[in-house]
Amino acid sequence: MSLPPQLRGVVTPLLTPLAEDGGIDVDGLHRLIEHVIAGGVAGVFVLGTTGEGPALTVALRREVVTESCKAANGRVPVLVGIADSALGEAVALSEFCASEGADAVVTTGPTYFPVSQAELQTYVRKLAGASPLPVFLYNMPSHAHVAFSADTVMRVADLPGVAGLKDSSGDIMYLQNLGRLLGKRDDFTLMVGPEEMLADAVLLGIHGGVNGGSNLFPELYVALYEAASAGDVPKTRALHDLVLEVSRRLYCTTDSTSSYLRGIKCAASQLGLCRNVLAAPYAPFEGAQVDAIRNHLHELRALEGIS
Amino acid sequence: MSLPPQLRGVVTPLLTPLAEDGGIDVDGLHRLIEHVIAGGVAGVFVLGTTGEGPALTVALRREVVTESCKAANGRVPVLVGIADSALGEAVALSEFCASEGADAVVTTGPTYFPVSQAELQTYVRKLAGASPLPVFLYNMPSHAHVAFSADTVMRVADLPGVAGLKDSSGDIMYLQNLGRLLGKRDDFTLMVGPEEMLADAVLLGIHGGVNGGSNLFPELYVALYEAASAGDVPKTRALHDLVLEVSRRLYCTTDSTSSYLRGIKCAASQLGLCRNVLAAPYAPFEGAQVDAIRNHLHELRALEGIS
Amino acid sequence: MSLPPQLRGVVTPLLTPLAEDGGIDVDGLHRLIEHVIAGGVAGVFVLGTTGEGPALTVALRREVVTESCKAANGRVPVLVGIADSALGEAVALSEFCASEGADAVVTTGPTYFPVSQAELQTYVRKLAGASPLPVFLYNMPSHAHVAFSADTVMRVADLPGVAGLKDSSGDIMYLQNLGRLLGKRDDFTLMVGPEEMLADAVLLGIHGGVNGGSNLFPELYVALYEAASAGDVPKTRALHDLVLEVSRRLYCTTDSTSSYLRGIKCAASQLGLCRNVLAAPYAPFEGAQVDAIRNHLHELRALEGIS
Amino acid sequence: MSLPPQLRGVVTPLLTPLAEDGGIDVDGLHRLIEHVIAGGVAGVFVLGTTGEGPALTVALRREVVTESCKAANGRVPVLVGIADSALGEAVALSEFCASEGADAVVTTGPTYFPVSQAELQTYVRKLAGASPLPVFLYNMPSHAHVAFSADTVMRVADLPGVAGLKDSSGDIMYLQNLGRLLGKRDDFTLMVGPEEMLADAVLLGIHGGVNGGSNLFPELYVALYEAASAGDVPKTRALHDLVLEVSRRLYCTTDSTSSYLRGIKCAASQLGLCRNVLAAPYAPFEGAQVDAIRNHLHELRALEGIS
Repeated sequence: MSLPPQLRGVVTPLLTPLAEDGGIDVDGLHRLIEHVIAGGVAGVFVLGTTGEGPALTVALRREVVTESCKAANGRVPVLVGIADSALGEAVALSEFCASEGADAVVTTGPTYFPVSQAELQTYVRKLAGASPLPVFLYNMPSHAHVAFSADTVMRVADLPGVAGLKDSSGDIMYLQNLGRLLGKRDDFTLMVGPEEMLADAVLLGIHGGVNGGSNLFPELYVALYEAASAGDVPKTRALHDLVLEVSRRLYCTTDSTSSYLRGIKCAASQLGLCRNVLAAPYAPFEGAQVDAIRNHLHELRALEGIS
Repeated sequence: MSLPPQLRGVVTPLLTPLAEDGGIDVDGLHRLIEHVIAGGVAGVFVLGTTGEGPALTVALRREVVTESCKAANGRVPVLVGIADSALGEAVALSEFCASEGADAVVTTGPTYFPVSQAELQTYVRKLAGASPLPVFLYNMPSHAHVAFSADTVMRVADLPGVAGLKDSSGDIMYLQNLGRLLGKRDDFTLMVGPEEMLADAVLLGIHGGVNGGSNLFPELYVALYEAASAGDVPKTRALHDLVLEVSRRLYCTTDSTSSYLRGIKCAASQLGLCRNVLAAPYAPFEGAQVDAIRNHLHELRALEGIS
Repeated sequence: MSLPPQLRGVVTPLLTPLAEDGGIDVDGLHRLIEHVIAGGVAGVFVLGTTGEGPALTVALRREVVTESCKAANGRVPVLVGIADSALGEAVALSEFCASEGADAVVTTGPTYFPVSQAELQTYVRKLAGASPLPVFLYNMPSHAHVAFSADTVMRVADLPGVAGLKDSSGDIMYLQNLGRLLGKRDDFTLMVGPEEMLADAVLLGIHGGVNGGSNLFPELYVALYEAASAGDVPKTRALHDLVLEVSRRLYCTTDSTSSYLRGIKCAASQLGLCRNVLAAPYAPFEGAQVDAIRNHLHELRALEGIS
Repeated sequence: MSLPPQLRGVVTPLLTPLAEDGGIDVDGLHRLIEHVIAGGVAGVFVLGTTGEGPALTVALRREVVTESCKAANGRVPVLVGIADSALGEAVALSEFCASEGADAVVTTGPTYFPVSQAELQTYVRKLAGASPLPVFLYNMPSHAHVAFSADTVMRVADLPGVAGLKDSSGDIMYLQNLGRLLGKRDDFTLMVGPEEMLADAVLLGIHGGVNGGSNLFPELYVALYEAASAGDVPKTRALHDLVLEVSRRLYCTTDSTSSYLRGIKCAASQLGLCRNVLAAPYAPFEGAQVDAIRNHLHELRALEGIS
């Protein structure tokens, strides 16, 4: 599949199914991709934060790329996270992605070394110049510790090969401002990360979301996208409330910042989509925490609209 | 060389000499190591922040390890930074370090994924269990975005294989508190990162410093360590003032956070120690900035005590 | 006027017109209140951040209260900001407000001393117990340096006298979560501060906004509220775009955090609503900055929908 | 007493003894000032953070000023904190301080409204121009949320009436840099706030400390100042260790940021210096917490050097 000029809809930031020995659970990966394609998503984004990409060795990352491209098999585009502290490694992974048939790569900008906006722009210019695949920007300051300012996005948005932005900052005003500046272009994609903001963003013109919950319940997120995109406020509100229920019950069971990732993987394992195995630095939920997720899933599935 | 039970003195966080094509400047690396050993340093720490470790590809990091061990040749211990977002890569690099004859590895904890203190302790436990070499902790919150709390340090300091801490937080109260808690052990090393704090830290009992300026003027930092270690306050103050002059003139020529790394590498190139080449995301100083560093170096070398 | 059980619509965080000598411009204050009432706002909030309340002496604050109550004269409710580092001063001002006929007071929680959520809850409990007027919470972490967690809001929302929340955090997920938790109550008011979020918030069920731009163009913000409240997405988008234009042209003319307050006051002076005088620590725009605001106002008034 | 051109030694940031009804405990205030003068301190700083100044009403602040001047009676200088969100209130308090015979006022810069460094410099210029008393800068970013950059300090240090700086940032590099820039002037005072940094700061040339623990054990802090000032490293280390013990046992009994203030006031009440009463937003320790402080005091007083 080649990437459309503009992505619209829900892209799943794919969980990475892992085996007990820490390797890739290839069957789980294929199964999960079938699940989300069947649910109507517009693409998959592998090796992102939800996919634990930066926590996997280079060899495992490459295996995920190869298998995801095989599984998607041209039905939806495959985007690949290449966050790395070394530009050389990011470029090498981009080249590998191209060779395997992926459709785009996604960069947080450099990690570890703090950069100015001018340095960040230079970085994107170098990466886009060297990458054989289109590059999406991934604004993820909570993890990458660098933020793409609106001015930086505008400056790099015209570079050949820069195709869009996923904003996971949680700052709706930033994203709307970019919508005002870039939303009329039909060859640049603006996506929102936090699923709790999917309704807001799409109602006011953002093109879609890259939302973790679509690993679990792809139809729900796709339906919310469609209602908001159609300007159906009552339906949007109702589906938005369901999304907030998913978030509250599955991602917030502890105070730690790891609750989201541990919760969603645990829930996915309860749904039979993958095993409850995480890469370091995180450990899977155990015992009472697993029970809580199981109960919350049970409650959720009793709500109309979640299946 | 095997690592002594406790390091004392100045350890150089070694710059990584790079060639114009981005590869390792092997001759420069050997020359720089000779320079700092001749200046009396107690060890070298390669692939740290000053060494741009996380900005280098895995292959280049390995080359630095191999060549540094050859160059040091047992005269001083070689410590190697293994900061990585993937534990598996950090362990693999540790194993490589052991095979090449390095003496210890240095971990910031996991990068990218935010961790709680409990998760950080688990990470260190796994790393120390898997690493064939002793592990130093590297408290570097400005870059790694995780901080080792005093409680965490205490909890992991007793693990087999955990050998010491380099604190680059800039928080003298944190370091002194650890000095109070751990300073009496003769098998655990406490080192301060920022050279502007070397005088303070050593006067009050910290074992030494891992200070970037010792790439340039190793004798100065060694002399300051010795004066402070001997409790000679007037001499410490005089040498400390020189260290502050180095910092002001070479590391602060622009407002950006990259000024330190760009300034020190430019100065090292002016001193003939390496080329003025940096890895992305940083670019070397050019033009007027190089002139400024040259002039500042000239002024510094006119001061008594810097050579 | 007594406060309705739930405020809905746009409340103006009133600018405080000042005379050249730093005193209150009483005529300006009356004129501004007429202007916003004529524009259809649902209330005025005096001595907030936009009103420079904390920058005014206690005597000036009292004069603002007295004159605002006179000017509003029961046509719309008058809410009064009582942010202070001393609880005793906040209570004293509440008592004065009651005596002058104001309708509610608005607290940021304590300023200066950092508090835990438990300490913040105790503070609200004491204040609500001592205040003769209903108390609104004002979540304003950028200035007050304390944030009301959702849990804290839930715990104090049932106290007698706690009437609502204005959220100026810029975190739409926080506000929507409170909407989920409290939005069905008909006696508790949820308002959004940043006008760039008014469309989002109201589309998804928040009761209205306390938006600075309504000092200048009250009809615009009231129309946006009404469109969003009615679920009219196309009209909401069009008016929302106008609000973003106001924000971009009037509040962002410099990089400083004072641009908002200096810009809005300068614009209000150009519109003949008040003088271009600010209280320390801020100084009014001068020269080219005034020209820029004048030109931007001219451009704005050429857009359909702004008058 | 008129203020010397340069203060040297330990200045006590005086606790404010409060009565059970929230008023000033005048007898306690006189007793506490006798206690610290007897212990050899070089001055008292009332209405600072330790003195809960910003938490007291204006009327109570004035009573503290009047009574402190009476109690000090010219034996040591009286400095008064005037932190306020309104410049007009700060100036009014300065005038009152002058009329009561205080020696200097201490400003954090404006609270509540965020300011740029240029705005901060203007604020200091206005305040120093209007204040009849010399003005000290109080760098207290954790509470005032504004920091005096080194450049700002240099720019205002030459203004008539600007007399010195108390640095409570905890950043030893910042303070040492100011020591390098201003330490040779004999008419400008540099003081360190956190007592855990008193040894460091004075060993390297800072003029003294404004240290909360000197409310309790003034002789200890004065002895530490004298040892460090004389360059006696062994004695400095020994006394510094005692100061760290005080800090650990009395200020860190809970995780909250209020532990310092609640702990020191509880300890002072145990020593018979004042009552265990705090102004909102803080509440005094109770029950087991009081017992813990009592036991820790008992342990401390068993150490040689604390009395």
